[in-house]
Amino acid sequence: MSEQKLYHVAVVGATGAVGEQMIRMLESRNFPVGELKLLSSARSAGTKLKFRGREYTVQEAGPDSFEGVEIALFSAGSDVSRKLVPHAAAAGAVCIDNTSAYRMDPETPLVAPEVNPEQIARHKGVIANPNCSTIQMVAALKPLHDRYGIARIIVSTYQAVSGAGARAVTELLRQTEELLAGRKPEPDVLPVSSLPVKHQIAFNAIPQIDKFQDNGYTFEEMKMVNETKKIMGDDSIAVTATCVRIPVLRGHSESVYVELKSDYELDDVRSLLSNAPGITVVDDPASQRYPLATEAEGRPDVFVGRIRRDLTHPRGLNLWIVSDNLLKGAAWNAVQIAETIVNSRG
Amino acid sequence: MSEQKLYHVAVVGATGAVGEQMIRMLESRNFPVGELKLLSSARSAGTKLKFRGREYTVQEAGPDSFEGVEIALFSAGSDVSRKLVPHAAAAGAVCIDNTSAYRMDPETPLVAPEVNPEQIARHKGVIANPNCSTIQMVAALKPLHDRYGIARIIVSTYQAVSGAGARAVTELLRQTEELLAGRKPEPDVLPVSSLPVKHQIAFNAIPQIDKFQDNGYTFEEMKMVNETKKIMGDDSIAVTATCVRIPVLRGHSESVYVELKSDYELDDVRSLLSNAPGITVVDDPASQRYPLATEAEGRPDVFVGRIRRDLTHPRGLNLWIVSDNLLKGAAWNAVQIAETIVNSRG
Repeated sequence: MSEQKLYHVAVVGATGAVGEQMIRMLESRNFPVGELKLLSSARSAGTKLKFRGREYTVQEAGPDSFEGVEIALFSAGSDVSRKLVPHAAAAGAVCIDNTSAYRMDPETPLVAPEVNPEQIARHKGVIANPNCSTIQMVAALKPLHDRYGIARIIVSTYQAVSGAGARAVTELLRQTEELLAGRKPEPDVLPVSSLPVKHQIAFNAIPQIDKFQDNGYTFEEMKMVNETKKIMGDDSIAVTATCVRIPVLRGHSESVYVELKSDYELDDVRSLLSNAPGITVVDDPASQRYPLATEAEGRPDVFVGRIRRDLTHPRGLNLWIVSDNLLKGAAWNAVQIAETIVNSRG
Repeated sequence: MSEQKLYHVAVVGATGAVGEQMIRMLESRNFPVGELKLLSSARSAGTKLKFRGREYTVQEAGPDSFEGVEIALFSAGSDVSRKLVPHAAAAGAVCIDNTSAYRMDPETPLVAPEVNPEQIARHKGVIANPNCSTIQMVAALKPLHDRYGIARIIVSTYQAVSGAGARAVTELLRQTEELLAGRKPEPDVLPVSSLPVKHQIAFNAIPQIDKFQDNGYTFEEMKMVNETKKIMGDDSIAVTATCVRIPVLRGHSESVYVELKSDYELDDVRSLLSNAPGITVVDDPASQRYPLATEAEGRPDVFVGRIRRDLTHPRGLNLWIVSDNLLKGAAWNAVQIAETIVNSRG
């Protein structure tokens, strides 16, 4: 028996909503971790976190944190990634970055392992993890694109607050408690913590995720447009997105209209999706079965249902796509990339 | 000065979520009510309700309840309407029916007063109030249809629980309290009270409103398809709908993609909508202003924002449309129809 190589792994943003799930995924997937380094901002440094029953003290992340690190998972915001990823890469680590910092950089692979795993090999120290709302959509649409070609996507999202981090989760719970107690809540975090105007998220739907661009779309919406093209490797796919935050804790849902390039049979679409890696079809209207955010929570798959022929376009198709935004939308996709790297070195 | 004629008005379903708002609208609009009769099921009969400071006892609705009634507002479910509307009409009342019972009947006008008020005059005792999710959409799209022609609509909804009645509101609040207290709630009402399977609505998004048809769409989705064509008086408009219940108490939101038949200027669209009756444009991304369910609550208008050119289709346009589903989506639209009738009698 050959001994398995163990890796020196760092998690940057270890105390955040995604960082916490990254640690859980490394654990549950039995990732070959030798040494583990948990890093965070100065504010959260000193926090104690458990991994495989052992307690780790979170340290402040800095340019010198990465000596000996072989795989670094980043989820501490774009500014932190822009500042520290170059140091980690220079120290020899492969950085898997969950922020938007490097996603559209032509030198950086943007990878959803179900879609374009072959891109991993061309990395130059950084592999970008796509945006949560993009990952689940491209994972579900890839088998359809391979078979029929996708001409056009029109997507409206129903996104959980955990996509905006742990503070947004606390905010939804606090606002909800206040409203149930008959008090008017003071919004403090959403829609965008760095912008001046805040809106109530409890019992509401906010059609703004991230800042607005001059074209009237938000950065989140344009991420879905641009990242989909890059991951699918096809600039001709037309994507229109409307991204909306709703009072859900975990699990993004998406109402997706797809226009295929060639005719399809609904049964073939079902069987393509049922056989696709990482996809679970939940689609039985007669027994009221369809994907639900609450049922996706804690599970790694992308769930697809409400699969139905568009009644107005011969090559139109409508889908309801749900996944745990902290897992497949973030931590699991990142660890999946790390697994692919490790296995290719096998 | 001529004396204003006063009307004998009945509200059927007076103790329901919409019935209650109908009474409030009659009051706040100073509707010329002479006598008022509040009717309900046997279960709710005996309830005391106030109108203009006077207390009324709700009576059980039956075939003989409508003697002398001139205007009857129905919102007690389709079965009740099918059973009692013929009796009310035979007794001489004009019935304004908020259920789906008569909406697609070719003899019955289906009216959103901003869109097709001229249809009211052809009634034969019944005028149907459109479905809540349809009303706000057609009210916002009518000025665009008049000016450019609408070829196609793809809509995804974010619908409040009050659209499913007072029990669904109680259910959302109860489930939310239980979850905050760390208990797992037992769903009891949603998505469809008469169907066996129930799903959690608190902190969730349920892609089912009403029952499923054999084509994979729900009745709610097909209402948006068919009612839009009937109200607009144009069977050529292609409509695709995905209807979703989210944990909001009042106010339906809609992400709407519209494909126009001719080219448009974005400024013209804005000014058409700004000048349209019953429409309020809330659209200033720079100051994070867009329609929100919580801000629409209690207001009669349809709010439109996120007005932006589709980047993938030259005649495509994206909108975010929000309205109080109990007011413009139900009670206010019904009372508005009643006002039109009363005014036309001078």
